[in-house]
Amino acid sequence: MLEFWFDFASSYSYIAAQRVEALCGRAGLELRWRPFLLGPLFTAQLGIKDSPFNVNPARGQYMWKDVERQCRKYGLPFARPSLFPQRSVLAARVACAALESAWCGDFIRATFRANFAEGRDIGAEAVVGDLITSVGGDAGDALARAHSDTVKAQLRQFTDEAGRRGLFGAPSVITRGELFFGQDRLDDAIAHATGG
Amino acid sequence: MLEFWFDFASSYSYIAAQRVEALCGRAGLELRWRPFLLGPLFTAQLGIKDSPFNVNPARGQYMWKDVERQCRKYGLPFARPSLFPQRSVLAARVACAALESAWCGDFIRATFRANFAEGRDIGAEAVVGDLITSVGGDAGDALARAHSDTVKAQLRQFTDEAGRRGLFGAPSVITRGELFFGQDRLDDAIAHATGG
Repeated sequence: MLEFWFDFASSYSYIAAQRVEALCGRAGLELRWRPFLLGPLFTAQLGIKDSPFNVNPARGQYMWKDVERQCRKYGLPFARPSLFPQRSVLAARVACAALESAWCGDFIRATFRANFAEGRDIGAEAVVGDLITSVGGDAGDALARAHSDTVKAQLRQFTDEAGRRGLFGAPSVITRGELFFGQDRLDDAIAHATGG
Repeated sequence: MLEFWFDFASSYSYIAAQRVEALCGRAGLELRWRPFLLGPLFTAQLGIKDSPFNVNPARGQYMWKDVERQCRKYGLPFARPSLFPQRSVLAARVACAALESAWCGDFIRATFRANFAEGRDIGAEAVVGDLITSVGGDAGDALARAHSDTVKAQLRQFTDEAGRRGLFGAPSVITRGELFFGQDRLDDAIAHATGG
């Protein structure tokens, strides 16, 4: 079993999210999607209210170049979003509401593509509704559940759990008791999960 | 040609520094060692006076675990130093003074091992002298040059240049006009250097 922790606003989470389900499938591993919000972690750990990539422009400038190169390497489309980070809370709540739905993985991948390849505003309810419909979900039902107290509490609980379990960024993988941070560790995490 | 930018206090620089000369040799690439100091960059870019790994304990705790795993992966010895980050300025000045010496690469690798595998204080002049001797250098001569105004200015110039060219951490590689950050990008950097 492998837990994949991500935030829809995170650029490197985009790349890893496109890859992780296929990698788990090939390795015969159960995948558990774990949406959470980076914002509260960055505020608690770094005292900042923005992405570390915006706080340090040198690091941010490099990140966009690097993400573009990595997308090319993995054959993924990429277009730098005009807004970064985007508001990811609504999409994260939909993902929480959809954890048991057949379209959950497709929704996650489509939402990341909307953010990092299609120039869409994933903070807008109409866009999120479109994305749900595009992967075969019932947008009205899923959005209603996303706005419920139960689902809001679920996302807060995942975010709290992320902090308690030592996460400090996304994507992160937890498998067999070990934490792996970053798209760059996805292959190592799969190897560890399968006993490597 | 490939420039390898590093700070002797940087844990991931340790791993990359052990690998880079062999990788360049195999690829037929000229390697240029570029010692610099991370401290002034972190202060200018982040307003901090310590390693980001100490400023954020969650990230620091993960880093040590990850460095240990990566050392195992690359067959490198590792022992977590009791002091982090170590004072790297003297060793960096020696590296500047030794750029044209045959023992430069050996000194760099030995000094990183002293820090990250042998529990030695690389801020101590006696230790640095021992390291120079151990790789066939003249410790008295090299240390005298390391304390000269010319060499001090050279290290300041490399550090200023690092900031001007967009570096924000170590190790970093610059080759064919592109910046690659991190031990995790060393193979990509070599591929780019050789036209890949």
